[in-house]
Amino acid sequence: MALLVQKFGGTSVGTIERIEAVAEKVKGFREQGHDLVIVVSAMSGETNRLIALAKEIMDEPTPRELDVLVSTGEQVTIALLAMALQKRGVPARSYTGHQVRILTDQSYNKARILQIDEQRIRSDLDQGRVVIVAGFQGVDEDGNITTLGRGGSDTTGVALAAALKADECQIYTDVDGVYTTDPRVVDTARRLEKITFEEMLEMASLGSKVLQIRAVEFAGKYNVPLRVLHSFKEGSGTLITVEDDGSMEQPVVSGIAFSRDEAKLTILGVPDVPGVATRILKPISDANIEVDIIVQNVGADNKTDFTFTVGRGDYKRALEILQNLKDELNAREVRGDSKIAKVSIVGVGMRSHAGVATKMLDALSQEGINILMISTSEIKISVVIDEKYLELAVRALHSAFELDADKSKEE
Amino acid sequence: MALLVQKFGGTSVGTIERIEAVAEKVKGFREQGHDLVIVVSAMSGETNRLIALAKEIMDEPTPRELDVLVSTGEQVTIALLAMALQKRGVPARSYTGHQVRILTDQSYNKARILQIDEQRIRSDLDQGRVVIVAGFQGVDEDGNITTLGRGGSDTTGVALAAALKADECQIYTDVDGVYTTDPRVVDTARRLEKITFEEMLEMASLGSKVLQIRAVEFAGKYNVPLRVLHSFKEGSGTLITVEDDGSMEQPVVSGIAFSRDEAKLTILGVPDVPGVATRILKPISDANIEVDIIVQNVGADNKTDFTFTVGRGDYKRALEILQNLKDELNAREVRGDSKIAKVSIVGVGMRSHAGVATKMLDALSQEGINILMISTSEIKISVVIDEKYLELAVRALHSAFELDADKSKEE
Repeated sequence: MALLVQKFGGTSVGTIERIEAVAEKVKGFREQGHDLVIVVSAMSGETNRLIALAKEIMDEPTPRELDVLVSTGEQVTIALLAMALQKRGVPARSYTGHQVRILTDQSYNKARILQIDEQRIRSDLDQGRVVIVAGFQGVDEDGNITTLGRGGSDTTGVALAAALKADECQIYTDVDGVYTTDPRVVDTARRLEKITFEEMLEMASLGSKVLQIRAVEFAGKYNVPLRVLHSFKEGSGTLITVEDDGSMEQPVVSGIAFSRDEAKLTILGVPDVPGVATRILKPISDANIEVDIIVQNVGADNKTDFTFTVGRGDYKRALEILQNLKDELNAREVRGDSKIAKVSIVGVGMRSHAGVATKMLDALSQEGINILMISTSEIKISVVIDEKYLELAVRALHSAFELDADKSKEE
Repeated sequence: MALLVQKFGGTSVGTIERIEAVAEKVKGFREQGHDLVIVVSAMSGETNRLIALAKEIMDEPTPRELDVLVSTGEQVTIALLAMALQKRGVPARSYTGHQVRILTDQSYNKARILQIDEQRIRSDLDQGRVVIVAGFQGVDEDGNITTLGRGGSDTTGVALAAALKADECQIYTDVDGVYTTDPRVVDTARRLEKITFEEMLEMASLGSKVLQIRAVEFAGKYNVPLRVLHSFKEGSGTLITVEDDGSMEQPVVSGIAFSRDEAKLTILGVPDVPGVATRILKPISDANIEVDIIVQNVGADNKTDFTFTVGRGDYKRALEILQNLKDELNAREVRGDSKIAKVSIVGVGMRSHAGVATKMLDALSQEGINILMISTSEIKISVVIDEKYLELAVRALHSAFELDADKSKEE
């Protein structure tokens, strides 16, 4: 008997048949005696259909009106799921974002939740109802409809769980949990029973797109136990929670994250004077290009080489900006490489274990993989390598840090 | 320079192209200096699409959730129209029923408007914005979403016009006004420049389905001048307004309404005792069958014949009920006829003119049309005739009451 917030994404409610299947599942949880708040996304494809309608009118639809438009997607799902539950004899009631007053700031299309009035939900729960809430949407203090941006339904789920002090926020999705790495790359990848919020953030931001980063941050901040599960397969999924109290041995490394979507730019031979980094990076960020890893090497003659990575989609624009800067900075040369990849090992265990970086570099050099850049943080070490070595690097690290599943045991 | 509430129905906003055309039209009105509140329906087909989704789940979807579902239809349109206006440089803002607090009672699917908070709308108008409001929907005092039932967007328009004391409520539709009769039956039918609320109610309830009856009642009650116009053709349409002060000569008859959708039932030779009408009609109304015209003739031997009409769809059920009653009432016989039609002349002018009925019956008898039933009210006389004479009767009456357009003048 627990209070659970369960979120079902767009593919889980993509057809009437799936909505019925979700209702069946929810009915089962209710029969176990749980109090349930269900958060749903728009039926898959619906948000894109609505945006396409808007784009027939304007290339860049007005943000306020776009939110009025796309928020209808979740509203359709909540009503249909409520009906599917009622049909099964389960009392249920649907609410839009404004009806349970999911108060956000006024940033249309990417609003942040400020507060939730949980009274109405609690009163329904007390009356034995399953409460269904539209994900992704809220209302600003003037009563305008806002949306939280893509994937915002996860955040709605976590915010509701925090407001209601729920026992767990369960995110139902099309994967059965968080893996040590992508099983398409490493066939011995293992589902993790548990992962910390910090590790999950590092895994998510590096491309394991199971959960929205904002939702994980939110869950960490309010200490909401978050569980990722498969919508239609049995299994306990992966629990994302606060760091263990140390009673159990932590693995040094929990997972290997990677990203192909990277490009590297270098400006060589710029004068090594204070402020030169800013002069290089400001025009990049002014162009709304996000910079990831930054490395600066001091060279000869008070000259320095400056290297950074950007998303591959921004590569060409970033290269142009640097080429325009070259003369102005009296630099020798600009170089770029869009055929690189980033591989990271992630684990809270590495905080207390020395030599993790050495072990990582060793494993890569044994495979003859050259490291182009390296960047470290408290629970993560990332290396940039030639893209063609990506799979090899991931497999080598997965094995070196003993993450491989014992396939023999499973049979 | 006037404050106008303009309502555009589903076919007028059925595609992006039409929404753009409506925006163009609204822009034109605004350039004339008018303050504008625009009420829109769901894009044509959308409400049916949503209902079909619900019916995949339940044959009779829960009323509350059905309203949550179908109200998304208008919400899509308001956002798209706001965008189409903004694209044209016209400041505009969309509102759902709850955002401008169109307060209704709690009758889901067929709610009635109780009150409108016009402050927000007025503030937008003062700031020079065109205000776009979702038709058909409201909110009850607990914040639940309600809808007004089919055609409810007309009512939203009129209610807004009443709350804002607008100069006119304009209903844009796919006809260019109210006609003296159906032009498909009488090719000399004329568009009326003006018609009174009472006449419009009689015309509407008899099948000239230009406007929702409730909207006309509402407009009459709050004395809101109502105009029916074509969405995409030029023209002044038909103004529906209070009765003239008599300064102008009223035509005796304003229009000829008719309905094919009728059936007649007679129970013969029932004892003519008090309460017998109730004993006949109660089981009919208990079966949710609406009765229209009722005629009772006194026959011989304290026996009476009792005749009434019902909608043709209810004919079979009504006949069964009467046959079951026959023995109980000691009646002689039950007869039915589903091949009848009703033709009515409507006009506030007949109040002050004697001999209108005579003129009507004369005109029909000259064409050899037998009258099966007759029913009169202050501004309407209806006759029931054999269905095969319907067109002939309408044309004869249209001509007898001098409603024919002068076709020669038009050329």
